[in-house]
Amino acid sequence: MKNEEYSLSLQPQMVKDMMTKENVGSYRFLAEPFHVDCTGRLTMSIVGNHLLNCAGMHAAKRGFGITDLNEHHYTWVLSRLAMEFKDLPMQYDEFSIDTWVEAVYSLFTDRNFSMHNAKGEAIGYARSVWAMIDLDSRRPVNLVTMHEGRINEYICTDRECPIEKPGRIRVVATEPLYSFAAKYSDIDINGHVNSVRYIEHILDLLPLEKHKTERLKRFEIAYITESYFGDQLDIYMDEDKEENVYMVEVRKHFSGEVVCRAKMEWKEMKNEDDIKIKPTLPLRGGLDFWEYVRGSTKSMKNEEYFLQK
Amino acid sequence: MKNEEYSLSLQPQMVKDMMTKENVGSYRFLAEPFHVDCTGRLTMSIVGNHLLNCAGMHAAKRGFGITDLNEHHYTWVLSRLAMEFKDLPMQYDEFSIDTWVEAVYSLFTDRNFSMHNAKGEAIGYARSVWAMIDLDSRRPVNLVTMHEGRINEYICTDRECPIEKPGRIRVVATEPLYSFAAKYSDIDINGHVNSVRYIEHILDLLPLEKHKTERLKRFEIAYITESYFGDQLDIYMDEDKEENVYMVEVRKHFSGEVVCRAKMEWKEMKNEDDIKIKPTLPLRGGLDFWEYVRGSTKSMKNEEYFLQK
Repeated sequence: MKNEEYSLSLQPQMVKDMMTKENVGSYRFLAEPFHVDCTGRLTMSIVGNHLLNCAGMHAAKRGFGITDLNEHHYTWVLSRLAMEFKDLPMQYDEFSIDTWVEAVYSLFTDRNFSMHNAKGEAIGYARSVWAMIDLDSRRPVNLVTMHEGRINEYICTDRECPIEKPGRIRVVATEPLYSFAAKYSDIDINGHVNSVRYIEHILDLLPLEKHKTERLKRFEIAYITESYFGDQLDIYMDEDKEENVYMVEVRKHFSGEVVCRAKMEWKEMKNEDDIKIKPTLPLRGGLDFWEYVRGSTKSMKNEEYFLQK
Repeated sequence: MKNEEYSLSLQPQMVKDMMTKENVGSYRFLAEPFHVDCTGRLTMSIVGNHLLNCAGMHAAKRGFGITDLNEHHYTWVLSRLAMEFKDLPMQYDEFSIDTWVEAVYSLFTDRNFSMHNAKGEAIGYARSVWAMIDLDSRRPVNLVTMHEGRINEYICTDRECPIEKPGRIRVVATEPLYSFAAKYSDIDINGHVNSVRYIEHILDLLPLEKHKTERLKRFEIAYITESYFGDQLDIYMDEDKEENVYMVEVRKHFSGEVVCRAKMEWKEMKNEDDIKIKPTLPLRGGLDFWEYVRGSTKSMKNEEYFLQK
């Protein structure tokens, strides 16, 4: 009876095959309906989610995954993420993400990504910066020397990542634009607001109209300290109308501690073709629909109970 | 150089194979890190996301997918979703979801789901109720007669779904517990707040402590009308402490229109083993870490720029 089909989401086999020494990991995706925004494009927060998953898979296959590290009381801390796209997959588009380690310093490592459309053409790139900490001493681990420097075997030198490295982000705004308390859905398995949710909260600062008519060319975020369930978070934003650039800072309301900083570079869409918005289904006034259904089914016993209002 | 691995997220091939006549669709998953909550379990909103994706894939393969329907100016409208689990997958657990059509009425169809752990044991079930509407007339389509009644070929009669059908939900609270405005991240390709986000907002009503120490046994939601970007939404909640049941209603602030209603049935966890919470990584005071890094790397030119604060 069971009809095995291809998997959605992460694939079981993926994390099992630990043998490959290949220095570039490549992962295939299809843009899920609930992962695209009002323009039908993948949202930048989901892109971030996918990138970090690829990083996790790729590291795990080389013995540097969170699970392995936790056994030795180490863990990865994401410091920076910068993403730049000339286009993003639309609902049900195929795409793939490649990831590789560009460099390893004593306290940080640079991991890069490229995103490819169904034709295999690169549609964007991303850079991430990670540190590893010792959970007992709370101190950073020297990546160059740990595991007899095994991480160096995984450096990939023949891949280009033609986007700028994460830069400095300064916010001068003194009045918060938006404040919220970290909730259940924001919190990850470690009790922290997860890295992807910050991206979501930051994208939510801008009006839908901007998301519809312009394109987020580059999104950059610097993670500075963790926040926890119930933390009151204030978001400050500077807008450079001339450059169409937004600088964002998330601060804890009571301590004033900076949690993260982000930079968004937007660009107007050139022509109508650029705006690949699918026609909105005319469901406004869906109420009429439900009233019609209620009216037309008074006598249908087995359906009546769906029709309460 | 490219090292093709298994896919994450939806798989390209899945939506292409339109030939199978098999009446049960089965999809494999692995619980992604950003899809689990503070207990390490898949969140109910992500479960909902996966279920609806499976429904979409399964319908598409039979020529009843949204894309096919839209060509004929029809679309599916989700009316009810009820999910009941005795356990949920933990981070990186393998699991699978089966889905099948239980019944087709003139205006509604019942689609059921079962979730299975890596051993193939059923860990939960779900029921959904859908209507199809004609986008031109805005009227419901008679499912029994459309496409020469082809949908009836897909009814599966030999699968059990041993959970109650969605029931009536009444909320008496007169003061909203929480209010919010629908934001960019809430909005789907059709311009509506997406079905999964309501589940997320509703789960966020309860304290983390409850999510940590109790289990959401059953979650049920009735979608009544759509809401849009910028809509001010008020959430009303009744709590039955005795039964540990919560009834929720989401209303538009200005029109008072009911958008959806939900019911949560919670149960205390029996013993410590039930609470499979992984130890929280001691990253509180992550600040110390960053200060340490800053202090220890003043001289490292190439790393300095990560260390701004």
